[in-house]
Amino acid sequence: MAIPYLPKFIASDTSSMVGPLLAPSSAPLSPPIFTQDDFKKAAAYKAVEFVHSGMVLGLGTGSTARHAVDRIGDLLRQGKLKDIVGIPTSKKTYDQAVSLGIPLSDLDSHPVIDLAIDGADEVDPDLNLVKGRGGSLLREKMVECVCKKFIVIVDESKLVDFIGGSGLAMPVEVVPYCWKFTAVRLQNLFKDSGCVGKLRTVGENGEPYVTDNENYIVDLYFNKDIGDLNVASDRILRLAGVVEHGMFLDMATTVIVAGELGITIKDKQ
Amino acid sequence: MAIPYLPKFIASDTSSMVGPLLAPSSAPLSPPIFTQDDFKKAAAYKAVEFVHSGMVLGLGTGSTARHAVDRIGDLLRQGKLKDIVGIPTSKKTYDQAVSLGIPLSDLDSHPVIDLAIDGADEVDPDLNLVKGRGGSLLREKMVECVCKKFIVIVDESKLVDFIGGSGLAMPVEVVPYCWKFTAVRLQNLFKDSGCVGKLRTVGENGEPYVTDNENYIVDLYFNKDIGDLNVASDRILRLAGVVEHGMFLDMATTVIVAGELGITIKDKQ
Repeated sequence: MAIPYLPKFIASDTSSMVGPLLAPSSAPLSPPIFTQDDFKKAAAYKAVEFVHSGMVLGLGTGSTARHAVDRIGDLLRQGKLKDIVGIPTSKKTYDQAVSLGIPLSDLDSHPVIDLAIDGADEVDPDLNLVKGRGGSLLREKMVECVCKKFIVIVDESKLVDFIGGSGLAMPVEVVPYCWKFTAVRLQNLFKDSGCVGKLRTVGENGEPYVTDNENYIVDLYFNKDIGDLNVASDRILRLAGVVEHGMFLDMATTVIVAGELGITIKDKQ
Repeated sequence: MAIPYLPKFIASDTSSMVGPLLAPSSAPLSPPIFTQDDFKKAAAYKAVEFVHSGMVLGLGTGSTARHAVDRIGDLLRQGKLKDIVGIPTSKKTYDQAVSLGIPLSDLDSHPVIDLAIDGADEVDPDLNLVKGRGGSLLREKMVECVCKKFIVIVDESKLVDFIGGSGLAMPVEVVPYCWKFTAVRLQNLFKDSGCVGKLRTVGENGEPYVTDNENYIVDLYFNKDIGDLNVASDRILRLAGVVEHGMFLDMATTVIVAGELGITIKDKQ
């Protein structure tokens, strides 16, 4: 059952939240109008309630995780959290955390992580995820597969009936060498699901998007269910030229979903 | 059964071969004394007999494959081979092939290869291989997994009872990001086989060896059999941070072994 947005949450101690989460002043009796970003922030703030002083924290990447990292920075500054060590999942999150004064380390020094908080692009009914539309899937997976607890934070638009069900990309990080060849082989793996593979590009000239690890991303689009996800995962990983894919299977321990009706917390069975 | 070295082979039309493969002149009646490099060359030359004009050829990397590439260059120059397209498996082989005037292409343009010839570091009784001690495992695997025929050329020292049985390295290409963390996880996968993982380094200062794909190599050493190789392969590939490993399973169609007793040709059953 969804927990409705309580005054406590809406009247957060973070002043920047008060504005967008209150009803417009011209319609004081109308229900509040929330944006997708408000939902992201609501899920992120809820997740940060699970953070305790002294924890080693995996810091996610993307427009939802950004709110969680901001919030952790706020609580550290206010002295409500202490002795946090953050493990960023991308160069972008590293920069954000540095700007907020969050002490940072890496997996070599901290190979066990108490809690990671990150967004996702898709969440299926078994809490399997698609991640990496933001391009950071490899480092995210490295960090989040060694967490005691992994909380995923999403707005309700990310819930899907099956992986690939949003019609948006399932990203695969590949080595730049002969990426076209790898893209065709990926596509052929899932012919029966109408798979189309496209190189992710940036800018007007369509330059390849380059990951933090200097690789490329081939985005796979499916027009139907790809079947057993663990089988699909192994088939992808067995292709020489593939570095990692964006399916995070059996990794999330909790998913926090924020939507029109409030916040829902789903725990892995 | 091994085919003994025939005069035809020893008195090859490549003058550079006559020297080392003939008995020392001071002992004309003694049996010829062959070096390990002579065996490599013998296996390589035998493999090149399978090359025909018009073929798309995967060109291997390493001290044995180098002889095959040289030989193909010779035959092209002599007009005995024509219309060959080579797909090099490393920057090193690319440079060698260019210097020999072998026309080159890549997997994007030629995704199907008629024949690849390459060396190996270990060959087990089922013709499974360890490759990549030379550092080119990823591109080699990309090329050699799409060959109609893949001939492996080795001297007899490369034959092992089981993968890892030589006591030498089974290389794994990993992303540089938090490679220590990945090395420990790799080692833990094969604790029962006494696995030790070491970063491959170069030079006096122990700088990490960097692959053609800008990754690092973690060399795994086992003190006993690692069991089912396909299971081991999937376990390695599932680790986020791993790009590829050096086990080439069920890929070789023929192995040509050169040793004291001559040349043996083993075909995949």
